[in-house]
Amino acid sequence: MSKQKPSIPKGMRDFDPAEMARRNYIFDTIKEVFKLFGYQQLETPAMENLSTLTGKYGEEGDQLLFKVLNSGEFLKKVTKDDFNDGERNVLPKIAEKGLRYDLTVPFARYVVMHQNEITYPFKRFQMQPVWRADRPQKGRYREFYQCDADVVGTDSLICEAEILVMIKQVFAKFGLKDYAIKINNRKILSGMAEVIGETGKEGDLCVAIDKLDKIGWEKVSEELLQRGFSGEAVAALSPVLETNHINNFERLQFFREYLTQSSSGRKGLEEIEEVLAFLAMLGGNEDHVVFDPVLARGLSYYTGAIFEVKVGGVQIGAVSGGGRYDNLTGVFGLPGISGVGFSFGVDRLYDVLDALDMFPVQQKESTQVMLACFGEKERNKGLKILAMLREAGIAAEIYPDLVKIKKQFNYADKKNIPFVAILGAEELSNETISLKNMKTGKQETLSVERVISEVKNPTME
Amino acid sequence: MSKQKPSIPKGMRDFDPAEMARRNYIFDTIKEVFKLFGYQQLETPAMENLSTLTGKYGEEGDQLLFKVLNSGEFLKKVTKDDFNDGERNVLPKIAEKGLRYDLTVPFARYVVMHQNEITYPFKRFQMQPVWRADRPQKGRYREFYQCDADVVGTDSLICEAEILVMIKQVFAKFGLKDYAIKINNRKILSGMAEVIGETGKEGDLCVAIDKLDKIGWEKVSEELLQRGFSGEAVAALSPVLETNHINNFERLQFFREYLTQSSSGRKGLEEIEEVLAFLAMLGGNEDHVVFDPVLARGLSYYTGAIFEVKVGGVQIGAVSGGGRYDNLTGVFGLPGISGVGFSFGVDRLYDVLDALDMFPVQQKESTQVMLACFGEKERNKGLKILAMLREAGIAAEIYPDLVKIKKQFNYADKKNIPFVAILGAEELSNETISLKNMKTGKQETLSVERVISEVKNPTME
Repeated sequence: MSKQKPSIPKGMRDFDPAEMARRNYIFDTIKEVFKLFGYQQLETPAMENLSTLTGKYGEEGDQLLFKVLNSGEFLKKVTKDDFNDGERNVLPKIAEKGLRYDLTVPFARYVVMHQNEITYPFKRFQMQPVWRADRPQKGRYREFYQCDADVVGTDSLICEAEILVMIKQVFAKFGLKDYAIKINNRKILSGMAEVIGETGKEGDLCVAIDKLDKIGWEKVSEELLQRGFSGEAVAALSPVLETNHINNFERLQFFREYLTQSSSGRKGLEEIEEVLAFLAMLGGNEDHVVFDPVLARGLSYYTGAIFEVKVGGVQIGAVSGGGRYDNLTGVFGLPGISGVGFSFGVDRLYDVLDALDMFPVQQKESTQVMLACFGEKERNKGLKILAMLREAGIAAEIYPDLVKIKKQFNYADKKNIPFVAILGAEELSNETISLKNMKTGKQETLSVERVISEVKNPTME
Repeated sequence: MSKQKPSIPKGMRDFDPAEMARRNYIFDTIKEVFKLFGYQQLETPAMENLSTLTGKYGEEGDQLLFKVLNSGEFLKKVTKDDFNDGERNVLPKIAEKGLRYDLTVPFARYVVMHQNEITYPFKRFQMQPVWRADRPQKGRYREFYQCDADVVGTDSLICEAEILVMIKQVFAKFGLKDYAIKINNRKILSGMAEVIGETGKEGDLCVAIDKLDKIGWEKVSEELLQRGFSGEAVAALSPVLETNHINNFERLQFFREYLTQSSSGRKGLEEIEEVLAFLAMLGGNEDHVVFDPVLARGLSYYTGAIFEVKVGGVQIGAVSGGGRYDNLTGVFGLPGISGVGFSFGVDRLYDVLDALDMFPVQQKESTQVMLACFGEKERNKGLKILAMLREAGIAAEIYPDLVKIKKQFNYADKKNIPFVAILGAEELSNETISLKNMKTGKQETLSVERVISEVKNPTME
């Protein structure tokens, strides 16, 4: 075997223990809230049949799917003609499987396969990596985790309200205070197209209006004209922009007036109001919740509520988003399954918490105390103490080799271990331990019992 | 988009919420122990460069690697001659990446890439899926999880002793009592080959002797003769088999005698004795620990201790195994990194706990109480109660639609929710809740506060 300088594929990442501790903090926090609300975990395989994946993410998505080469004689079915004709003919004969591109399509596939065993409403969450052969760049990876929660088999708007509460609880746990949960409804967007005299063109309307934040109203109105909207329509739209700086209540009042001629629009407003009413019953207030009539999220497959969450004070895109859909599983032959779901972007949340310095200093993951021993006798005694610490539920370790005490302290320091328990000749004869708090530098001579209580509830200044 | 009956690739699995709860129970238990002993989590990407993976698992392993097709115009570099010559020439031009086959090679690759940042001894654990294009059969999947823990950068035998304690603690948490941790040492196997006059042939010796359990001594001795062992050598080996039914102490005594002429053998015995001494200092007894001089585990790359764990009462292979190695990273150009590691087989542990009916009845994952409401007023009141339950840390949900109470109970029953809190007209006027224990069938009328304490600490018979 030849020696080689190893590397990893571009756009992929290793996560070292410090990063894992922070990532697990994010996962655990989200998972805890999902479970508190009755969502249960599902996992699907990394590979799906390409027939399941292809055609679900548009033409660009098909290009970005990672395809897995068939095992064994993968060229067996490929003819010379296929080869001469190129990738298009060769691909289906050499690859039958692809890597998961998101968690929604595998979930839809799962629901269809198990439609008769599932208890509805089915509240599931899923936290798994997905893979996309995208061009890697800052903040965009070829392997990244998604955290999705969906409930299917009910159209109750309680689900939407619970999603708002869940997002608020997750952010409260993170200690994040400056953020906005934008909420809109597809029917309001339809209604807007209707009342400006461009019925059915909410798709074009949304593509343009989605850019409002970035390019401003002037450019958006130009684009609308280019997309065939009449000058009257564009003019009729402009009052909507004036609602930017009023509160939800006033904005809803404005739209009740504005959309009065559209039954779809009125329905959308009613749904928003019902969601906010359920939110109040669930004990939540409207802090952070913003009714944003121009929120579209590409519209894709949403048919009711649309959500998006952005954090203030950082230049990072939406950290969460979702909405209600009517036809999750239609493409797999099972129409009429309605549901609502949302997703947390773990990588973006990581960047947000990192940028705002909001990660807890001491991660649960790390060792709490390390035993440093001056010699063999101390080490042997240390092993007994080690067992007692662990028995008390304290993550503890001993430096396994007989090396200089400085090297042992170095190890504890680099591993960010908060306490070092020192065993020397004196400690051995007194049956004590010298406990050093690595943060404060304070050191005290204590019994094992006192060490246990001190590590669990530090009092040493 | 055409409708299609979806399926998943063979050898792959979905894990539904009930299975996930049980799998998480296994993962969480193992992870808790790993952390208690100072091991920290690492994650590596699902894809590695094929140059990292190829040649590390033997020729058969190379065949079983899942290869990922290059993105875009994957045929660009393939010539007509390549195509005519077949897979061998085409493969390296169309696939540069492969899926993780185990956790050891990516770990070795990580250590080499980050050799200067790592704090040694480096205690890492890793719990991730691996993929092998094996022929699927009962208990063998193409995607399965491995749980590895390794410590590299020290040759202290405290690590071996701690592995024994970790395995014992994991099994204690599972409530498993009938199991054996077999331990041996590569040097003892070398010593055995030496003293029977077949120095250096411990490889052949082990391949044959590994089958002792399955085919018996007669067939093993035949195989040894076929492999070129002399009749005297085989005869000289037979007393070893007699040590089957004696305890560790007596077996060690026997081998001190038997291996007295081999320095390697004596060293191996010393190491075993030192591991057992450290085990005692760590407060562990030798229950379940069996010195097994014929344990070989294919020998592969082990140079010191060898471990294997089997559970009694089930026909399932080893659930854990590992050993010490001298040269983890040599293949990547970094020689001399010694370490010791072991691995839990999650799928086998699942099968063991399932076969022995040892999974906890109530999983932590599931909803603890569901609110069933007779009508809209009750539902609206229910939302307030729901918020109070969750505030108290109780995983709770409300049936989101206004349907018959029987349907709501059905849902709770199928989801295995232990308590249903019923709200009807009477409860509404009395400010009470009727709490039903779904296991015992007992029902009581309680205040919200009593419901919270009852769900947390059930007293209702």
